[in-house]
Amino acid sequence: MLERFKVKQKDYIRVQETALRETVVSLFEKVGVNKEDSRLAADVLVTADLRGVESHGVSNMLRMYIGGYQQGSTKIDPKWRILRESPSTASIDCDTALGVIMAPKAMEIAIEKAEKVGIGMVTMTNGRHMGMASYHAMLALKHDMIGLCMTSTAPEMIPTFGAEPRLGTNPIALAAPADKEAPFVFDAATTVVPGNKLGLARRMGVILPPGWVADGEGTPIMEETIPPAPGYENPGQSNLLPLGSTREMGSHKGYGLAGIVEILSGILTGGGFGVKFPRPDYRHCVAAYNIESFMDTKEFKSTMDEFLRMLKSTKPAKGHDRVFYPGLPEAECEVKYRAEGIPLHPEVVEWIQTTCKGLAVKCAF
Amino acid sequence: MLERFKVKQKDYIRVQETALRETVVSLFEKVGVNKEDSRLAADVLVTADLRGVESHGVSNMLRMYIGGYQQGSTKIDPKWRILRESPSTASIDCDTALGVIMAPKAMEIAIEKAEKVGIGMVTMTNGRHMGMASYHAMLALKHDMIGLCMTSTAPEMIPTFGAEPRLGTNPIALAAPADKEAPFVFDAATTVVPGNKLGLARRMGVILPPGWVADGEGTPIMEETIPPAPGYENPGQSNLLPLGSTREMGSHKGYGLAGIVEILSGILTGGGFGVKFPRPDYRHCVAAYNIESFMDTKEFKSTMDEFLRMLKSTKPAKGHDRVFYPGLPEAECEVKYRAEGIPLHPEVVEWIQTTCKGLAVKCAF
Repeated sequence: MLERFKVKQKDYIRVQETALRETVVSLFEKVGVNKEDSRLAADVLVTADLRGVESHGVSNMLRMYIGGYQQGSTKIDPKWRILRESPSTASIDCDTALGVIMAPKAMEIAIEKAEKVGIGMVTMTNGRHMGMASYHAMLALKHDMIGLCMTSTAPEMIPTFGAEPRLGTNPIALAAPADKEAPFVFDAATTVVPGNKLGLARRMGVILPPGWVADGEGTPIMEETIPPAPGYENPGQSNLLPLGSTREMGSHKGYGLAGIVEILSGILTGGGFGVKFPRPDYRHCVAAYNIESFMDTKEFKSTMDEFLRMLKSTKPAKGHDRVFYPGLPEAECEVKYRAEGIPLHPEVVEWIQTTCKGLAVKCAF
Repeated sequence: MLERFKVKQKDYIRVQETALRETVVSLFEKVGVNKEDSRLAADVLVTADLRGVESHGVSNMLRMYIGGYQQGSTKIDPKWRILRESPSTASIDCDTALGVIMAPKAMEIAIEKAEKVGIGMVTMTNGRHMGMASYHAMLALKHDMIGLCMTSTAPEMIPTFGAEPRLGTNPIALAAPADKEAPFVFDAATTVVPGNKLGLARRMGVILPPGWVADGEGTPIMEETIPPAPGYENPGQSNLLPLGSTREMGSHKGYGLAGIVEILSGILTGGGFGVKFPRPDYRHCVAAYNIESFMDTKEFKSTMDEFLRMLKSTKPAKGHDRVFYPGLPEAECEVKYRAEGIPLHPEVVEWIQTTCKGLAVKCAF
């Protein structure tokens, strides 16, 4: 029987964070990545899993990253270099470095610049997938800074009134510290849903909500849909709708926001845009804003506490019992999964174990 | 008979740009604003009208601005000052300066900083309404910079799963230059529609599209609605839905984006957030990014041309004949209205003429 789209976890296998981390490090090391970078890549992936962002965790991304190294589309020892630099900016040629490893290094440069002059922003061209964008934004938090991260991806979004994909899912992530509350951490595609969520729904054969995709002629599908259906049947061309779904409900805004990402983390990197440089090419942008350059950091963080408490104390809508703010569900998930282990799909566990065996790597679970 | 929501212009009176500008300058001068600032304020208002952004033009805003000066909630001669400064940042206390006049000055500071160190960002607290946000972002264009502008407004948006307004319509504007094409200019509220569009629809008594507001219990109204209806009946509490309308269609993204604006152009100004400091208080943020600090400006602008042509050459969806990009309809409107005059509602023309008479100011039309 068809069910509504919801990821079910009842059959998942719980794996402890440390065991997962150790195994992922070993796999990266085995394909030739140095120890330090392997630890970094594993941290990005496992942090996504811990925060419940399965789409960007080990289960969904590790295979692609290891594959990229094995096929040579991602360099094991990239010679990335700064192309241009100013007191608050830098542009990097990644030399196909995996974004998961490159972006944290770029963020460290941004943070150093923000310490000196208030703001640091670093663009990256010729890059590879960067994993969960908010990981990189969150690196700013321990420096009492606000972190921003964006990435320009291959075309999957159709413009408002358009009938073919022209922009990526182009996510935006921003992290801002609080004092006692969990930080504000926003991380979202500018499409209604990311492409891999649609792929998952397709594989599961569930009822899809309205407003996710357009049909082959560009008309938004605004009814619940049972696949196969127009717009859902072709994994190669998703026709993802911009956030807002229809013009009357503001799809031109999601489309425009994707355009902003394409400009700041695409064209401004010197690496063009998604239509010209699709997968496996990605272009990124990270930025750090030093709070102390604007105001007293302590006051900022206590006002953030007040702001976040105000949001979560909002009177809930009928049928709901809680109001969240961006980053709160993920912070709660992290506490839970650290204690109980990370739920992984049996197929993922099997793939990791088989891959470990094939590469003669010890699997820690 | 009820009609779908669409602003009709057939009864509008065409007024030449220069006549409108001259009259607006005279009105500002008459209430005590100096010549230079009056010209600036008139330019912000008339530019909005020329670009077809009627909601932020003379017809919708002049009355409020003149009223603010007359009531004393906006100071005629504010003593604005820089509270804190770094090579790439500044924080300003506006001393209730009208945002329309203050924001361009803040943008000039941001541009100067960006010329020196790559990026300049200026936050403003204790401010008043800033008009069309993209006006300020567009000031960066002639300097071959990318301009950003955001403003934190009084609560009108309900959070996802919430039943009461907690965040403003919090718009984001970004302008990026091209070479031969009209610049990319994005300017949009993070709610599905801005509050004044809802107000207009209410007054006109037209059928409202789904997904604009929630009812009194926080449930998104997803059917076409004929007012009076729950959520539409109370001008004081709009329950505007975040961009995305429902959780399944991504309203948590519109909500999160509004949160980003509340942080960067609210809390980071030192002036708190909308719930604590509602109207007539506004907090703003402007930023300039010097393209030459990242890459060759000529290459950036020619790539922008290519990008914008790619977008507007997108195959149109069934029933549509053109695909636009942000800023293109507005640029086309500007050419048209400069030649044909700006269409103003007869009531607006009457209000301006009456106000001019009352203040003994010459109306130029």
